[in-house]
Amino acid sequence: MTEPLRIAVAGLGTVGGGVVRVLAERSGDLGRRAGRKILLSQVCALDRSKRRPHDTAELRWAHSALDLAQSDADVVVELIGGENGTALDLIFAALNNGKHVVTANKSLLARHGADLAELAERKGVALRFEAAIAGGIPIVKALREGLIAHGVGAVRGILNGTCNFILTQMEATGRSFHEVLAEAQRMGFAEADPTLDVEGHDTAHKLALLAALAFGIRPTLDQMTVEGIASITPEDIAFAREFGYRIKLLGVARQGPDGVDQRVHPAMVKLGTPLADVEGAFNAVLADAGEAGPFFFAGRGAGQSPTASAVIADIVDIAGGAIGPAFGLPARELETTRPAPESARASAFYLRFQALDVPGVLAEIAARLASANVSIESMIQRGPAFGDSVAIVMITHPCPPFAVESALKDIAASDKILDAPTLIHMEPA
Amino acid sequence: MTEPLRIAVAGLGTVGGGVVRVLAERSGDLGRRAGRKILLSQVCALDRSKRRPHDTAELRWAHSALDLAQSDADVVVELIGGENGTALDLIFAALNNGKHVVTANKSLLARHGADLAELAERKGVALRFEAAIAGGIPIVKALREGLIAHGVGAVRGILNGTCNFILTQMEATGRSFHEVLAEAQRMGFAEADPTLDVEGHDTAHKLALLAALAFGIRPTLDQMTVEGIASITPEDIAFAREFGYRIKLLGVARQGPDGVDQRVHPAMVKLGTPLADVEGAFNAVLADAGEAGPFFFAGRGAGQSPTASAVIADIVDIAGGAIGPAFGLPARELETTRPAPESARASAFYLRFQALDVPGVLAEIAARLASANVSIESMIQRGPAFGDSVAIVMITHPCPPFAVESALKDIAASDKILDAPTLIHMEPA
Repeated sequence: MTEPLRIAVAGLGTVGGGVVRVLAERSGDLGRRAGRKILLSQVCALDRSKRRPHDTAELRWAHSALDLAQSDADVVVELIGGENGTALDLIFAALNNGKHVVTANKSLLARHGADLAELAERKGVALRFEAAIAGGIPIVKALREGLIAHGVGAVRGILNGTCNFILTQMEATGRSFHEVLAEAQRMGFAEADPTLDVEGHDTAHKLALLAALAFGIRPTLDQMTVEGIASITPEDIAFAREFGYRIKLLGVARQGPDGVDQRVHPAMVKLGTPLADVEGAFNAVLADAGEAGPFFFAGRGAGQSPTASAVIADIVDIAGGAIGPAFGLPARELETTRPAPESARASAFYLRFQALDVPGVLAEIAARLASANVSIESMIQRGPAFGDSVAIVMITHPCPPFAVESALKDIAASDKILDAPTLIHMEPA
Repeated sequence: MTEPLRIAVAGLGTVGGGVVRVLAERSGDLGRRAGRKILLSQVCALDRSKRRPHDTAELRWAHSALDLAQSDADVVVELIGGENGTALDLIFAALNNGKHVVTANKSLLARHGADLAELAERKGVALRFEAAIAGGIPIVKALREGLIAHGVGAVRGILNGTCNFILTQMEATGRSFHEVLAEAQRMGFAEADPTLDVEGHDTAHKLALLAALAFGIRPTLDQMTVEGIASITPEDIAFAREFGYRIKLLGVARQGPDGVDQRVHPAMVKLGTPLADVEGAFNAVLADAGEAGPFFFAGRGAGQSPTASAVIADIVDIAGGAIGPAFGLPARELETTRPAPESARASAFYLRFQALDVPGVLAEIAARLASANVSIESMIQRGPAFGDSVAIVMITHPCPPFAVESALKDIAASDKILDAPTLIHMEPA
């Protein structure tokens, strides 16, 4: 029998607590699958005295997280979070000391992933991050190992459970973003500071990692346009439904001949297609694996058990000897890509204008769109429900983003237009 | 640099041709991912002179499939098919000679999988079969490696693309099973002899493997009830829709305290749930991973590229050193389970009776169901469209299968009932 694999866990929050619990409760089964015993050797957390669901009193505690990099552990599990600071210092030191690293830290990997992957390879150890994307869905494994035969040309995902929960609740109740966010915060489904989630940055971090795995590129946030869900209104959700769509916050990465298009934004997703039906806190990824066709993966994107499940899978893989490159290809072969040109980013758009109910408004909007070469595929005008404003809603034919943006700027300047116009991407099915 | 990994392919049909093509066209990328060159060293097929889409003239041909087990190959890819005969002889010989085996042969593995897995382990080589289930969906990998932390309690799947295509077409066109089957055969979506597919046996083979992976049991067909789709009528599909359901051929495996329930049959799946939306030749698996929640996987279940994709993933895994047990656990630790007792197999049922349009029919049916302790949740009676028969359609509350079966036997004996009553499982959401 091989030596046991010794695990050190840094950070005992929701996920860390789950990892400790599963390692204790299912050590027999995990050891049989790994072909060797898996042993929790040390833990570390900021507040040792905090009450935790699982008994942590009998665990060996390290004085500080960085000590774990010097410990007898074979694997350091980083669940501290933060894109720099202790988390980065710990991962760097652990890899340098020849320890495998498992982390759920997407923001750190989106920035430093390629460099850390290279260090891991140089040291002959694994850097694994299944838990960083889409919770328990084994999507990192699927992209790194499962769908490699024909190459993956595009990935699209619902990657943030908080945003998807908020959008689902907005549709179910007709309430505003801010009302539903406040409720989600009370229920513990949204952070006290929800910025990272609702402004799309968390989705951007995960998308950067998915793109790196799918296309063999260095993860980067520099080339990404990122837009959150705070401006989505119940009106837009209702109009979407009328047109046969549902609004989702998507991360989209697509490899073209001239570069990679990476973007995070709310999008109209056609009802009846897989991403439209992903509800509440679930996550999902649609990967277009070339000739092998689309593959769809869905499951719980966050929470103790799903995320711990992903961490445990990485640990058992390492125990079984799987220490291949973090992003599938040797880190030095990951390409630095340029962003796709504007022309490769054409999309149909949903536009909503709140306008005064006076003659000539529609003519003015239509004329300005026409002069920017934006043509209209369908339209709804809804008379004034309250006051004297009308909603004019259009779906355009595909056009370059700059065309529709310049038309909107002109239109917004009209004194017949009351609020800033709303623009939402239509996602092709 | 490590030695190249030498691959021998037995069987150059649709899938084998795809494997040969991908190995030729993408050898650079695959080699970089595997950390070593992957080399097609030999092939074998029944008819060497047959025209194939990929040029096979320059390949090294073996005289017979069994010769590949004696060749210089490190990996033998078995794509001959058949549950015994040459395929079994080849796999047995290859493993015995210390060669890794990759196969897409579900019927063979459903019968001999545990024994072959044990032989592979004894010889220190891999036995891999991602391509045997759900085409390109990396579901074997997901169950064997990805979802192991909390255990998987149930798997349900749409595992046969031919049946799903037929059911989808029946719904779209209102045509009968036999008409749509004939059309599918003309279009090449169904075999000349469709028995294995439409009678549910192909689904059963795949289900046995899924259950083995999910529950750590020896794959077996002995404990399975298997029913195909030949008796599904356009009327049933239309009534299903009226109740808010869609009929799918499902493989269902569920682990209970007293045994494992494994069954293949048409089932009513609630519209709006993931399995209901799987259309045409797509496959899907819903895995209930305990606390980590349900995970859903969908993609192309057959065809050259999806299936070759799975074979290639196995080959690259082996090249990277992944030679763990075929079913996740050491083969000798796979349990021999007993079937779940009848009481654990309660289900709600859809019942359709074609009856004479005379007084007392409904009373008679209702009385016989009541006396078998089967209670009714909802009902539709539809007057005679042609002739003088009426359709009486009911959905029961959950009850043991034997209760409803015995009531149906009584009811069928009535002279007011025209055809054999139809019974379809209602699948819980």
